[in-house]
Amino acid sequence: MLRYFLLFSILFIGLINVRAMWLAQVGPKYPPTKGEVWPKPQVEVKEQTFYVFNPSQFKVKVLDQTCDILTNAIARYSYLLENKLGLKTHPTAPSPQTEGIHSNTSYRGHLKELEVTLTSPCEEYPHLDMDESYNLTVSSTTTLVSSSVWGVIRGLETFAQLFYVSDDHNDIRVNKTTISDFPRYKHRGLLLDTSRHFITVSNILKTLDAMAINKMNVFHWHIVDDQSFPYQSERFPELSERGAFDPSMVYTKDDIERVIEYARNRGIRVIPEFDVPGHTGSWGIAFTDILTECYENGKVIGFGPMDPTSNTTYKLLRDLFKEVQNVFPDKYFHVGGDEVELQCWKSNPKLIDYMKVHKLTASDLHALFMSRVIPLLANATVPVVWQEVYDEGVILSTDTLIQVWKYNWITEMINVLKTGHRVLFSSSWYLDALGSRWTDYYAADPRQMVYDVTSNKTLMAGIVGGEACMWGEMADDRNVINRVWPRASAVAERLWSYQDSNTRYRSSRAPSEAYNRIEEHACRMIRRGIDAQPPSGPGFCVV
Amino acid sequence: MLRYFLLFSILFIGLINVRAMWLAQVGPKYPPTKGEVWPKPQVEVKEQTFYVFNPSQFKVKVLDQTCDILTNAIARYSYLLENKLGLKTHPTAPSPQTEGIHSNTSYRGHLKELEVTLTSPCEEYPHLDMDESYNLTVSSTTTLVSSSVWGVIRGLETFAQLFYVSDDHNDIRVNKTTISDFPRYKHRGLLLDTSRHFITVSNILKTLDAMAINKMNVFHWHIVDDQSFPYQSERFPELSERGAFDPSMVYTKDDIERVIEYARNRGIRVIPEFDVPGHTGSWGIAFTDILTECYENGKVIGFGPMDPTSNTTYKLLRDLFKEVQNVFPDKYFHVGGDEVELQCWKSNPKLIDYMKVHKLTASDLHALFMSRVIPLLANATVPVVWQEVYDEGVILSTDTLIQVWKYNWITEMINVLKTGHRVLFSSSWYLDALGSRWTDYYAADPRQMVYDVTSNKTLMAGIVGGEACMWGEMADDRNVINRVWPRASAVAERLWSYQDSNTRYRSSRAPSEAYNRIEEHACRMIRRGIDAQPPSGPGFCVV
Repeated sequence: MLRYFLLFSILFIGLINVRAMWLAQVGPKYPPTKGEVWPKPQVEVKEQTFYVFNPSQFKVKVLDQTCDILTNAIARYSYLLENKLGLKTHPTAPSPQTEGIHSNTSYRGHLKELEVTLTSPCEEYPHLDMDESYNLTVSSTTTLVSSSVWGVIRGLETFAQLFYVSDDHNDIRVNKTTISDFPRYKHRGLLLDTSRHFITVSNILKTLDAMAINKMNVFHWHIVDDQSFPYQSERFPELSERGAFDPSMVYTKDDIERVIEYARNRGIRVIPEFDVPGHTGSWGIAFTDILTECYENGKVIGFGPMDPTSNTTYKLLRDLFKEVQNVFPDKYFHVGGDEVELQCWKSNPKLIDYMKVHKLTASDLHALFMSRVIPLLANATVPVVWQEVYDEGVILSTDTLIQVWKYNWITEMINVLKTGHRVLFSSSWYLDALGSRWTDYYAADPRQMVYDVTSNKTLMAGIVGGEACMWGEMADDRNVINRVWPRASAVAERLWSYQDSNTRYRSSRAPSEAYNRIEEHACRMIRRGIDAQPPSGPGFCVV
Repeated sequence: MLRYFLLFSILFIGLINVRAMWLAQVGPKYPPTKGEVWPKPQVEVKEQTFYVFNPSQFKVKVLDQTCDILTNAIARYSYLLENKLGLKTHPTAPSPQTEGIHSNTSYRGHLKELEVTLTSPCEEYPHLDMDESYNLTVSSTTTLVSSSVWGVIRGLETFAQLFYVSDDHNDIRVNKTTISDFPRYKHRGLLLDTSRHFITVSNILKTLDAMAINKMNVFHWHIVDDQSFPYQSERFPELSERGAFDPSMVYTKDDIERVIEYARNRGIRVIPEFDVPGHTGSWGIAFTDILTECYENGKVIGFGPMDPTSNTTYKLLRDLFKEVQNVFPDKYFHVGGDEVELQCWKSNPKLIDYMKVHKLTASDLHALFMSRVIPLLANATVPVVWQEVYDEGVILSTDTLIQVWKYNWITEMINVLKTGHRVLFSSSWYLDALGSRWTDYYAADPRQMVYDVTSNKTLMAGIVGGEACMWGEMADDRNVINRVWPRASAVAERLWSYQDSNTRYRSSRAPSEAYNRIEEHACRMIRRGIDAQPPSGPGFCVV
């Protein structure tokens, strides 16, 4: 296209990608790359020679081990490839089969086959310590090798991202490439809040698709909260019957199993969060008893957190958690523990007495509550909690994962890590900050932050990963995909890709190549059905 | 629904709509109103008695004058009413025809007919001074009367907004109501930028639908800019052939006529903007000659604003404007004039010479340019310009409309008004401020601001209205509807509805009833196909 020619002409007059602010900004702000992978692979050697892709002359072959997850993944990517990954060609010149392309000295022939080799048996469910590494070679023989089905899934995604349309729009190409790849952090999550607004299952599945495209591996389902209770319980059907926004706005057991299975097939864990004792208003519509009555001037003015002195509360939690743990196979379970409104506890005459008798503060009550709730989980379960639970001095087993989300994150992470607990980082990655751009999220690296202060590599290794958090106050079914993507892609790359310890991205910047690469990535997501928003400014996707 | 009952129980324990921050926030943050109109009518008397609506027993009858615009409007609203405006009932109790409802003492029978009376002949196109007033009575005889077809259109929209679903979900109701309504400001616009990202015609039409729902009456089409030139010119086809992002991303003459006709039928003017001399990079791909070459260290580094000394520039503008004015019927035409990069002009040897010879500054060059461009418009045309054109001292006819958008808005408005020019206000209404909420936009009232400083009512009357501006850097076809609505609804109400001079909304607040009313309005837009985002927080729409 001529506009690109003009643009590049301008760029090459000694400026190289940085034009004076006062020049006319013709065309896309950051022209998209072609066949570059997001998140960036750890080791990637790409040649400027290429193979031409024609779906009718291509197939995927599986060697060695297989299983349902692998078969399903191959089917998904084969379907994508048959449909050219949504890439559009407009052949005007001679077709690649004829003479035209052969005059191009970079042309290496047609891409014939992808050989997928899984060298070990499949695991049934993804887990924190799963192996996601893989080796991919695009050459006269194209191979994807991994010792784990999860690695194969990640490698298939990378393979799909290497394809691009030639500049003359005649054909789809893939460069000769060698990739050796693995994630930097084990836990690369996305929190989705389905209580402040209900999100339909179809949008949750779309979210999982997008997570797979971004190699994220944990769907943190913040399923209930004050505002609504969409989880449909078999043991306590009243909870959603009375606590959901609308009878249509619930997740049935079938819905949840569908989400878990869809995620499993994409190497994504599903960790449910039932946040207690705060954020439980919607529970109280069916079970008023379990909440604390808040008082003002001697009168009840409404409800606050769960009543930490009532046995009814713990019995309900025990039975509900038992049911939930049967539905969600992951070993980790999030019990929340954030933002407990101690003010309400302090206003309640019964609790005032209780605290007086037992010489407890309201903070102690929270600690007491959590220390009674966590043992209600099944034996093998690993609890995940928001940082307040740690802050309030609850005795936690060392395997407990502490999710850091507040503003004091560096001090907090260091404190938590020093007591031998592991950290999940979220403070810098709240997607409900609507004015924040992807570069704001990209700039944060939790291990780097801890290392900058402590110079302690062992300590920083205790950060197992992080999560982008899509709180639902301003996100509903109509805008959630757009709000999350591609901004969460920045978090995905930060958690997967290598970061040179000398390269510290500060003040909301990213390496200049990333600006162009995320443009391609956003268009790629759009081609694959994820309505991503523009990453950085003017531009367009042909879809 | 029981959750509402609990919620209201809490509210009625002496709190009335303001709950202590530390109580559990169960349910929607602001429960939607039922059958309240947005923007709020000037005079509205509503009784707590109601009529039941059943589409099969209802019709619209037109008395007196008619025309195609009226017939089309009646057809649109009849279709909406036949489909119950998207409102969902779930009759469980006896049907309204049977005994049940008659025991309700507020029940006044069925709504039978709407009599629409237009007392004067139709105008062909909407214009600045059109009459949009109407009187609407919902009673045993339901009437809508206006002396203008535009008033009828506004009244039909109000009528459609009065319907609501009864609390028991059994039937659709409309209260006995008398409304006398008219707009406070004449020009209530929305700017849409289709250059930074291409917006398809179908989304432009959807935008016009949403504008009509919000009684906005000017679509300011910022059709071209630096980044792309999607306007397909008959006289200069090269402009879009080379300047559009993609061959598929152009507006043909048919497209534009379709937009104008769709707008006309909704009482919406379409004002095109061809922004000159800055923001014209995309023009230069086909016509390099008309742009200024910018220099650095004696070398050309790119292109800047149009060359104000080249006759080629003016010839092209003359011919293009002639064509464009034949396509767009509105009397107003926006020639831009903002953000001219004088730095480029100052760097160009030819222009340096020119300025030296004629003893001009770069600012003078801008003034010179605008004073040569404005006379290229047809005689009856009224120019609209961005405030810089005024600021740089161009002699402007008093009918010129000055669009104020910069941070110095109060001083600027007062200065402009004092010289007898009229003002169009936009400074506080930039929708590309992604973190801004509807209440931020709602808080700004240009006339009030001018009055606060000058206490001069004549002066403030020179503010003919304002525009919400959706600049396209971060808005594309996938998110533009959501970005604009319901935030632009705040601007729509500010420009239409009465504001008591004693009531000054400051620091991003709105009257408390408006929070609930805009929730209903957002759900209403969603029911009518406009994917509005959540206005203020947790909640849900049943659609």
